[in-house]
Amino acid sequence: MTILPDGGLRLAELEEQSLQPGTKGLPITQPLRQHMVGLQRWNVLAADTGFPVAVLKISSLLHNLDWMRAFCARHDAVLAPHGKTTMSPQLFGAQLANGAWGMTLATAPQVLAAARFGVRRVLLANELVAPADIRALLALLRDDPGFELFVLADSADGVRRLSEAAVAAGIGRPLQLLVELGIAGKRTGCRTPEDALALARIVAAASGLQLAGIEGYEGLLVSDDRGADIERVDAFLVRMADLARQCDAEGLFVGPRILLSAGGSSYFDLVARAFHAVDGLSRPVLPVLRSGCYLTSDHGHYLELTAELDARDNIAEGLRPALEVWSIVLSRPEPGLAILSMGKRDASHDLGLPVALRAHRPGEGPVTLPAGACIDKMNDQHAYLRLPEEGDMRVGDLRVGDLVGCGISHPCTTFDKWSVLLLVDDDYNVQRAINTLF
Amino acid sequence: MTILPDGGLRLAELEEQSLQPGTKGLPITQPLRQHMVGLQRWNVLAADTGFPVAVLKISSLLHNLDWMRAFCARHDAVLAPHGKTTMSPQLFGAQLANGAWGMTLATAPQVLAAARFGVRRVLLANELVAPADIRALLALLRDDPGFELFVLADSADGVRRLSEAAVAAGIGRPLQLLVELGIAGKRTGCRTPEDALALARIVAAASGLQLAGIEGYEGLLVSDDRGADIERVDAFLVRMADLARQCDAEGLFVGPRILLSAGGSSYFDLVARAFHAVDGLSRPVLPVLRSGCYLTSDHGHYLELTAELDARDNIAEGLRPALEVWSIVLSRPEPGLAILSMGKRDASHDLGLPVALRAHRPGEGPVTLPAGACIDKMNDQHAYLRLPEEGDMRVGDLRVGDLVGCGISHPCTTFDKWSVLLLVDDDYNVQRAINTLF
Repeated sequence: MTILPDGGLRLAELEEQSLQPGTKGLPITQPLRQHMVGLQRWNVLAADTGFPVAVLKISSLLHNLDWMRAFCARHDAVLAPHGKTTMSPQLFGAQLANGAWGMTLATAPQVLAAARFGVRRVLLANELVAPADIRALLALLRDDPGFELFVLADSADGVRRLSEAAVAAGIGRPLQLLVELGIAGKRTGCRTPEDALALARIVAAASGLQLAGIEGYEGLLVSDDRGADIERVDAFLVRMADLARQCDAEGLFVGPRILLSAGGSSYFDLVARAFHAVDGLSRPVLPVLRSGCYLTSDHGHYLELTAELDARDNIAEGLRPALEVWSIVLSRPEPGLAILSMGKRDASHDLGLPVALRAHRPGEGPVTLPAGACIDKMNDQHAYLRLPEEGDMRVGDLRVGDLVGCGISHPCTTFDKWSVLLLVDDDYNVQRAINTLF
Repeated sequence: MTILPDGGLRLAELEEQSLQPGTKGLPITQPLRQHMVGLQRWNVLAADTGFPVAVLKISSLLHNLDWMRAFCARHDAVLAPHGKTTMSPQLFGAQLANGAWGMTLATAPQVLAAARFGVRRVLLANELVAPADIRALLALLRDDPGFELFVLADSADGVRRLSEAAVAAGIGRPLQLLVELGIAGKRTGCRTPEDALALARIVAAASGLQLAGIEGYEGLLVSDDRGADIERVDAFLVRMADLARQCDAEGLFVGPRILLSAGGSSYFDLVARAFHAVDGLSRPVLPVLRSGCYLTSDHGHYLELTAELDARDNIAEGLRPALEVWSIVLSRPEPGLAILSMGKRDASHDLGLPVALRAHRPGEGPVTLPAGACIDKMNDQHAYLRLPEEGDMRVGDLRVGDLVGCGISHPCTTFDKWSVLLLVDDDYNVQRAINTLF
């Protein structure tokens, strides 16, 4: 994978750093420089690594990078992928080198970490309120005139804080804000277009600030009733566009273009289509999508949602799951139960438990998992893999020491459980290590 | 807090390392050496830090260290606190300096990390199966004759792996095993005392291994029916003691004493009493308790369970919650809702959501939280604090920028979300930073 040029120096520093014994998944007893990982000829299926180990399939990552580039080109949108998902500087680099317009992030520490590794344009898709966080990001803007930042606002109190701080910091340019339109009963954001318009006027009039666009997050509308979701998302996007038109009619926007940003990892096709249709404004509209989970997809929540997206958008081949957590069978205490060396500390459990994909016996080969084999519980460090019985015979001859590869549901809450993940080829040969910065 | 002498050098290295901008909670824009943290005069209530920030109250930690030392002395038990809870070398140091016999850990990487920071005696309360993990721990034993390790076994397959590896590694002494007695329908461990006895015979006969004791984990029996729990726990502990007697009668134990180990963070009083009553064996019994959560306690699951323990054991003053996560109000989008800058990435959500304790307006003082204010949902980076209304008036004048201090339920899944936590005095002055090694 290509790394981003601006981040080259710092990424090289990561390659020079010594990985320490005790790093999850690494079979090392002495410190090992990170760039040496690819030379060790570790193979996951040969049980060369420790278990659990988190792996990313390079072929799937490359496919997904291409897929999203083509999607954005087709829809005339740009991508600021949500970096909170992976918080991996190497993956940020791969995304930016493959056409991303910038990175989206959720918190000030995430912005600082990304900036350290060469990211130059950030959409902070969140309110920025804590004084220390505001100071830190303004210092970043002051010290690096080429660094570009967009921040959300949904309250007059918040805008006043930012205005006062921006003026005091003397950053030499206005801080760019997007007014956030919200949804009744949901998270942040002005609850009505009227409130949002009033706030946009406050931003436009405030010292040290500039209204750069409108933001919303349709992902909060995902429910089990997908038909209803789509109607609600479309209606929300219409409200966003109308708000942008009103702000534009009042001359509140400054700058060469108007940002319109939405787009989680479930309904970004609807966002792209809706924003593409917005025209007749005084200056060009830049639709900024923000999906974070497209890069790795998953074997659960997002795979299902993007399969529906593929169907809506007539996409022949969808995103491919890239992230797996492999563990080892620690115990077969009962016929229908295998205990795996992977727990809540290793894999997400908030939007579905891990999905057992395949089993492998090192030195022998694949082991058949019975149909219906299913993880139904995790403790901090263990998973309970239930093996259904068939008639009198137990199906699935899974033994202590066998490896089990699991897909996950929700990449965000899996990445944050690993400081190092391993990139593997399709035969599970380890090619290199990447870092996360949580 | 005292640090452990053997780990002094490495802990000093941590103090010398530079904390980087982008570390959650730290209000820094330039790298800062860790030992300088205490000199910055940061105060959490003054909003000097970033938010969210995870803090540990020093007075509560010291109280809990003393509490547990007195508890173990009273019950003639030793403590190998479960280090997986915090994975903090500084807290390991404090535990060992305050009377802990050793540390308990859950995985090979955890053992390697603890050993790097001077821990010299480890009970690995888990099966050890992966070849790389086995190799790494045997290398540790070979290279450091003073390092002591106990490992669990619950299957003949597992014992064979360990025996072959121990013989091959030539560690110059037998690997010490505890046979794990399990519970039907639960996690690891032999399902019947007969199976466990048969396995103990296999261990005793195996090359390179030594049977050092019996292990079980009564914590798997915690349910909502506490009366039934206690009966089941007591019965399980009787089975463990009977198994130890049988193994002893057959001369299977080797070494100066017989380890009996159980004791999560809920029912360790029952364990201590049951093991204290075991007598008449050929050599002394050493009861090893393993609570991990006593050190910080919490404001939820464990606080409730240890309050019941206090009542059973006639303890006047219980453990004190030491761990809090403070966040800031990002948005007040609706009268009954405040959105906090703290999410599933920052606080545990698996055994109950965070508990809003108090609010504070920097520069002004405490803000009254309405009775019943309650976090009922978290996203990755946000919490939803519901504020009940009272009659026509909204109670709780919480504004954007106010700070909210939350207790948590389940320390294990909060610690693993922070690479650095801040130790504070009772006025929330930051005294120093500690690290975790997840």
